[in-house]
Amino acid sequence: MPQPKHAHESLTVMTEMVLPNDTNTLNNLMGGRLLHWMDIAAAIAAQKHSNRTVVTASVDNVSFSEPIKLGNIVTMKAQVTRAFNSSMEVFIEVWAEDIPAGVRVSTNRAYYTFVAVDQSGRPIEVPQVIPDNDEEHARFASALRRRQLRLILAGRMKPQEATELRALLEN
Amino acid sequence: MPQPKHAHESLTVMTEMVLPNDTNTLNNLMGGRLLHWMDIAAAIAAQKHSNRTVVTASVDNVSFSEPIKLGNIVTMKAQVTRAFNSSMEVFIEVWAEDIPAGVRVSTNRAYYTFVAVDQSGRPIEVPQVIPDNDEEHARFASALRRRQLRLILAGRMKPQEATELRALLEN
Amino acid sequence: MPQPKHAHESLTVMTEMVLPNDTNTLNNLMGGRLLHWMDIAAAIAAQKHSNRTVVTASVDNVSFSEPIKLGNIVTMKAQVTRAFNSSMEVFIEVWAEDIPAGVRVSTNRAYYTFVAVDQSGRPIEVPQVIPDNDEEHARFASALRRRQLRLILAGRMKPQEATELRALLEN
Amino acid sequence: MPQPKHAHESLTVMTEMVLPNDTNTLNNLMGGRLLHWMDIAAAIAAQKHSNRTVVTASVDNVSFSEPIKLGNIVTMKAQVTRAFNSSMEVFIEVWAEDIPAGVRVSTNRAYYTFVAVDQSGRPIEVPQVIPDNDEEHARFASALRRRQLRLILAGRMKPQEATELRALLEN
Amino acid sequence: MPQPKHAHESLTVMTEMVLPNDTNTLNNLMGGRLLHWMDIAAAIAAQKHSNRTVVTASVDNVSFSEPIKLGNIVTMKAQVTRAFNSSMEVFIEVWAEDIPAGVRVSTNRAYYTFVAVDQSGRPIEVPQVIPDNDEEHARFASALRRRQLRLILAGRMKPQEATELRALLEN
Amino acid sequence: MPQPKHAHESLTVMTEMVLPNDTNTLNNLMGGRLLHWMDIAAAIAAQKHSNRTVVTASVDNVSFSEPIKLGNIVTMKAQVTRAFNSSMEVFIEVWAEDIPAGVRVSTNRAYYTFVAVDQSGRPIEVPQVIPDNDEEHARFASALRRRQLRLILAGRMKPQEATELRALLEN
Repeated sequence: MPQPKHAHESLTVMTEMVLPNDTNTLNNLMGGRLLHWMDIAAAIAAQKHSNRTVVTASVDNVSFSEPIKLGNIVTMKAQVTRAFNSSMEVFIEVWAEDIPAGVRVSTNRAYYTFVAVDQSGRPIEVPQVIPDNDEEHARFASALRRRQLRLILAGRMKPQEATELRALLEN
Repeated sequence: MPQPKHAHESLTVMTEMVLPNDTNTLNNLMGGRLLHWMDIAAAIAAQKHSNRTVVTASVDNVSFSEPIKLGNIVTMKAQVTRAFNSSMEVFIEVWAEDIPAGVRVSTNRAYYTFVAVDQSGRPIEVPQVIPDNDEEHARFASALRRRQLRLILAGRMKPQEATELRALLEN
Repeated sequence: MPQPKHAHESLTVMTEMVLPNDTNTLNNLMGGRLLHWMDIAAAIAAQKHSNRTVVTASVDNVSFSEPIKLGNIVTMKAQVTRAFNSSMEVFIEVWAEDIPAGVRVSTNRAYYTFVAVDQSGRPIEVPQVIPDNDEEHARFASALRRRQLRLILAGRMKPQEATELRALLEN
Repeated sequence: MPQPKHAHESLTVMTEMVLPNDTNTLNNLMGGRLLHWMDIAAAIAAQKHSNRTVVTASVDNVSFSEPIKLGNIVTMKAQVTRAFNSSMEVFIEVWAEDIPAGVRVSTNRAYYTFVAVDQSGRPIEVPQVIPDNDEEHARFASALRRRQLRLILAGRMKPQEATELRALLEN
Repeated sequence: MPQPKHAHESLTVMTEMVLPNDTNTLNNLMGGRLLHWMDIAAAIAAQKHSNRTVVTASVDNVSFSEPIKLGNIVTMKAQVTRAFNSSMEVFIEVWAEDIPAGVRVSTNRAYYTFVAVDQSGRPIEVPQVIPDNDEEHARFASALRRRQLRLILAGRMKPQEATELRALLEN
Repeated sequence: MPQPKHAHESLTVMTEMVLPNDTNTLNNLMGGRLLHWMDIAAAIAAQKHSNRTVVTASVDNVSFSEPIKLGNIVTMKAQVTRAFNSSMEVFIEVWAEDIPAGVRVSTNRAYYTFVAVDQSGRPIEVPQVIPDNDEEHARFASALRRRQLRLILAGRMKPQEATELRALLEN
């Protein structure tokens, strides 16, 4: 079994400039384009943690509340939160910046999961994640709840068995 | 208030061929690329329903269980399920086909939501959705539950208030 | 010899959104970009009919009379009309839609031909096409005349031998 | 009426390297991609002749007989052959070169037509074309016949009126 | 005159994954593609320093000694070194990483210069740069020498006047 | 040792139209995009001279003084100037043309160097270059000086040894 690794060892920062083809008729970044960039940034974080080729297993609910404009700089920070056998959950935050205007806003947060695979595409075990600071500990703990929600939504767990998730809804 | 429209009036079929730049080092379609295509197909369905410019508001959990190969044909079918004031939920299904091999598999299903906006980008009311067949009725009914889950995950509804969703988990 | 197939079994619907890079300085879709999309849609139809890898053999005269604007939705419908040994003729129709304006126009019609090839790129026989409705029968019949015109234009048939085509011009 | 210009003043040479995304699963350049490049090269020639913004009006029959491989260099030479009021016919030739192998083949020839437009997109008269060498004279003369065929195929001329074209078929 | 800013305030990290279309027939990243990415990363650093729209003024000699492979992760770190009125010099370093192989190499270093412009595209003064650590001080000092070399190479300074540069060659 | 070849045998002309995604927020061609195109044009010239696969070894200082606008036609002319064992220096000139306005300006000049490689990526000797006209002779002679500057800048030659270059600065 591979040696555990610190969460921050997988930290990945990716920057993109919003170009014309990335925008809709309102000159705003299209949601799907951002989902594509986030997937690449998160995949690199998962690669760094596992030192393996990785494939996207899922993306959790993503909301788009802030429009991101043509010419804005988009910064993404992705880091692994927890590993389960061959799968890894990655937390990713997105900021958009209108640099000439001096405005920077937090626009999105999401969780992607990836599976590490070997040369022939078969799942392979990855290192456990060691959380260090408070935020890393909190995301490590809540990863279980998010995993249960994913399994229910994919029809692979019965709602009654999702003890972590039920506790949340009953609070 | 705009005239209600049938769900099937928004039906949108989109087809893409998986090209080299869409793939990872295993020659499989990257998840983020598919999310991007799905967003465009779903946005067209929401445009057809509302006859408005639309912006992506959210995407629900999407799972990627089946690899889609280089050269495969990806078919997406998107249709509006229900409208809430200025927002619309769109259901989208994805199939991948290796035509020379005669193999076609269902690969993904997801719900995207969009907001219709006017010229200046402000939300504007859209027609109600009329479901016709059984599947349309079922998706229309369950849209409420998915909406509650989205609001909770976005921190805009307290779990205790999500009566539809709690009923699901307590079954 | 492979089993004949119905024309409609190859029906392919492809949808594209006109993005900035697809347009000229008048913000209209460039003709070459549309020819590229049409080739992909038609190739998928030919693939579906033959269950083979296909290569483009020719495109017949295409006219561009209606400008298609940035942000428009382009819908293409492609279907095989007739097969000749290893080659297939595909008819493709294109519509452009300005959805917010509620305007949809027929913009182009064209015939592409494809050759089915095996693994090493050699031509291989494809199924005959069974036309069903009136339009399919008409296109099946006139395919012979179009084929003669193609052969003459490619310098591979003498005009005097093009009996089908001469009949047309002498009507 | 604008001053006539020599055919060779519009000569345009365009070179492209075949990259992975330009190819099909046989690693050959896709026909539609080449049609797109040819349209751009031909449009530049028409722009040079007219000093106007131009829009594609039509492309005549194009055959694809030679496969063009990944990594090949594609050279296109485009030149205006004749003008009719606001429209121009452009002849374009294509060669593909595998430079390390020292092989260069002629792969395609086609005629595109363009319409020159003013700022508001309305057709505007262009200079007449002066052919100089033998080939330019021959293409200038045969342009009339090709124009008749285009008009017939677009349903805008009756076959009986196409005197130039009929002469060809009756030879 | 704008308030001076620390060099590190402009630090920009950009990450890219090498995709098929970025590579040549040896499956290595093409030099021009990397120059394009470096220009974007460096431009963002110059934007951050000046809070202005910036345009590329020059790139100094760049060497490519290490091949970067398909699937590698390319990380770029860009930071402003010194400002001269409306122009800024940006130092950029590039690393390529084969994550599954656990190999990371330094591949390139370059200096780009940018000019800050106002809304109408006219040059506008930018903040002076405050170097803090030793490396920043060294790059700040040597910026003068590189600027002289640029001016000579652009034919805008006589070699005899380049006192800083001559000192280097005579060491 | 391969047979020497004339400089003009490698002449390569490449034409590009500036599309929206190639431009910054001022609607000007981005410097990095132009560097990318120049690299491809220069690489084709080096391929033609050597009949080998080539990899970019370096680009010398490039200045960008003239803005190139959206819709402009960019023409590049590249030609080998001199060869050193397995490496070749290529001179490339760039013009931008606003055809409707009838304006054509010289915008850039640069030197790229390439290394010819065999199938396994190892450097391999290339033909010597035969300069013919005056300009070719001048660029052939000055190639030595540019090579010394490159070696110094890459830290692979001591300034004192760069006799050709020192002569230039001491004029």
